[in-house]
Amino acid sequence: MSATEMALDETELRRIVETPPLHRWLGIALTEARPGEVVIELPYREELLATPEPENGYVHGGIVATLLDLAGDFALATLVGRGIPTIDLRVDYLRPALPGRALRATGTVVRCGRRLGVADAVVVDAEDGRQLAVARGAWATG
Amino acid sequence: MSATEMALDETELRRIVETPPLHRWLGIALTEARPGEVVIELPYREELLATPEPENGYVHGGIVATLLDLAGDFALATLVGRGIPTIDLRVDYLRPALPGRALRATGTVVRCGRRLGVADAVVVDAEDGRQLAVARGAWATG
Amino acid sequence: MSATEMALDETELRRIVETPPLHRWLGIALTEARPGEVVIELPYREELLATPEPENGYVHGGIVATLLDLAGDFALATLVGRGIPTIDLRVDYLRPALPGRALRATGTVVRCGRRLGVADAVVVDAEDGRQLAVARGAWATG
Amino acid sequence: MSATEMALDETELRRIVETPPLHRWLGIALTEARPGEVVIELPYREELLATPEPENGYVHGGIVATLLDLAGDFALATLVGRGIPTIDLRVDYLRPALPGRALRATGTVVRCGRRLGVADAVVVDAEDGRQLAVARGAWATG
Repeated sequence: MSATEMALDETELRRIVETPPLHRWLGIALTEARPGEVVIELPYREELLATPEPENGYVHGGIVATLLDLAGDFALATLVGRGIPTIDLRVDYLRPALPGRALRATGTVVRCGRRLGVADAVVVDAEDGRQLAVARGAWATG
Repeated sequence: MSATEMALDETELRRIVETPPLHRWLGIALTEARPGEVVIELPYREELLATPEPENGYVHGGIVATLLDLAGDFALATLVGRGIPTIDLRVDYLRPALPGRALRATGTVVRCGRRLGVADAVVVDAEDGRQLAVARGAWATG
Repeated sequence: MSATEMALDETELRRIVETPPLHRWLGIALTEARPGEVVIELPYREELLATPEPENGYVHGGIVATLLDLAGDFALATLVGRGIPTIDLRVDYLRPALPGRALRATGTVVRCGRRLGVADAVVVDAEDGRQLAVARGAWATG
Repeated sequence: MSATEMALDETELRRIVETPPLHRWLGIALTEARPGEVVIELPYREELLATPEPENGYVHGGIVATLLDLAGDFALATLVGRGIPTIDLRVDYLRPALPGRALRATGTVVRCGRRLGVADAVVVDAEDGRQLAVARGAWATG
């Protein structure tokens, strides 16, 4: 993490990633941060399942969307210096997120303007690295 | 609810709405269902907040996205007869979801084809009815 | 058209709808305008086809997207007073646009803020009224 | 172009890129093709402008969307063997497309399933390489 180019230091970034109530309930952890890019992880827990039976179930797409949203937001936060409101988010689900697996999300800034930022995010299975979902969104940087 | 036109009865619809682990943790409740349209509600709980301080905080956009996804999915389920995989979802956030307020989501089918369904969803503050977010998505009906 | 509530008069709206070079090449015509809503039409011409053979062809989705973009933009223009830049646009194609048919698009404002506007648009076959595509987008109102 | 891995040969790909009436009117040219990726170009012409005055004008976003749609579609065509219907397309406009400049679009497959394909596309100014717009969409591969 090149602190000199980051718009906020790692302590502050970690605070906005890990302290909000939902993030704590989910157990979101910041694992990497560079200017314009972050990696976060979400541990598995059974309450995330979208299906009554765990054995042939999958993690809810809304949880995957939450992770994608956070990854894009924090990627922009490295340049803007704070968490910022999401304007819109578009998620493509590629494969189901299997029960028992942690998820890893990478957020990458596409463009960071004075009023508007665009970022991409991808969620992979943390164990085998397979892409599960991709997203792109717009955030209010102003 | 006009059971003769629904592709699944209310007991079965209620089961797929209310029994999956995430839905139970969130406390999702089915309040209305007609062929091609459902209304669901989400009670407030502090774990949903995206911000460290509840007083000037708001409910996480990922939770709002989850609710929009479910509303669209269940609207299609009334015609298809079962919950179906989300292909993609696009959410527009219009206003923050304030702490302490229940949320109400309405899902409406735009088109239900043999392979692909498109649905709209809107989330409002259950108390004052203000639109907080709208979404549109594609689901695999085949 | 209730001119007292429109942010621009019909002459000015018609100018931004009908005079830009692409709009003239396409033959875009303004048919209705109210505060927050417009209806525009696009006549058929063979150059719009996406397929080498007209008989089993269809109008290009990019042309349909153009019409949806314009409808959303002009709907916001009725409130903002001028054409505004599109931030993002998401189009769902429901049915092919058949050769020989004019297209009609309606744009409707979802929310018009000081910096950001959201609008919906729908394109129908002007002859039989069938929905061919729907869109939602964000525009910079600031 | 590694013809052994392409699902259609270059002659056939060039036919679906360059012969449909709209593509001919626009002057779309195929410049590169590999399995899962294509590059196409669009020459400038004044009829593409969205603004009455060329000097401070820009090319219409609907034309940029058309180019993005084609790039994603043809990228999938290299794997599927034919042009395929667009299900949905989401475009983010990053910077205006200036008058007088050719546009270059690259389409890249994200995932190509039996029924559904997802592709990304980017449009750059062909002269200076600046990103003008990005898109992601879903196509029916079945």
